[in-house]
Amino acid sequence: MTDRDVSACIFCAVVAGDAPAHVVLRSPGTMAFLDRRPLFHGHLLVVPERHMVTLADLRAEEVGPFFAVVQRVARALPEALGAEGTFVANNNVVSQSVAHLHVHVVPRRKGDGLRGFFWPRLNYADEAEMASIAARIARSLNVTE
Amino acid sequence: MTDRDVSACIFCAVVAGDAPAHVVLRSPGTMAFLDRRPLFHGHLLVVPERHMVTLADLRAEEVGPFFAVVQRVARALPEALGAEGTFVANNNVVSQSVAHLHVHVVPRRKGDGLRGFFWPRLNYADEAEMASIAARIARSLNVTE
Repeated sequence: MTDRDVSACIFCAVVAGDAPAHVVLRSPGTMAFLDRRPLFHGHLLVVPERHMVTLADLRAEEVGPFFAVVQRVARALPEALGAEGTFVANNNVVSQSVAHLHVHVVPRRKGDGLRGFFWPRLNYADEAEMASIAARIARSLNVTE
Repeated sequence: MTDRDVSACIFCAVVAGDAPAHVVLRSPGTMAFLDRRPLFHGHLLVVPERHMVTLADLRAEEVGPFFAVVQRVARALPEALGAEGTFVANNNVVSQSVAHLHVHVVPRRKGDGLRGFFWPRLNYADEAEMASIAARIARSLNVTE
């Protein structure tokens, strides 16, 4: 990504203080602030301060501190807002509206009308099809079992 | 949670090898295997081997290793299955179908018919309402800014 791309990134502008945001937490390397078009009020976005596009781009040493912030705000939301649970989600590439890694943390209540992600689900034809697909993934992971 | 509860947990049974699963990765403390009712073929579940209910229950030292596995499978899926992106999501309490922490990692393709989580979104009345809600969350986080 070029400097010009970064300068056009709205979340980089938030991190730099050049775009307004309602920040709830700033931890070394990571920020959490309100999504302006929330699924429910209190819907947060957690972003790394360093520009990167997807979850795959987090360096090994960044994974723990980044998700510690995700966990911390997911713990706080129910108490803060009288919610019962949370929905934590991250779109990479497809359905990703801003090309800067962001994890949504959304307060949930029973009967709030959101279905989580219980969209219609598929079946596998049989165990052999499952085994074949699992093997393809395992190969990409360089797993030998 | 009592021993009896744990013995009834399907993901604990998978971890123990007492329930069948198509495992793609086993890392110390963490497992990844195929969801049997996938959004798309290759839809994975990442679970901690230790029984816990939600994201909030991961110990500080477990957060990094657990999400390193989430990241690793999210990196592998596009290559393994010819996908373009991934959807990574976790329901805590509300919409949580199995009371053992699990993170879904789902392969995505443009035009696959999934809308990510672009459900109808709300607005905030004004900046003051946003500031008020952000302040409530920040207080729960014990942040002084």
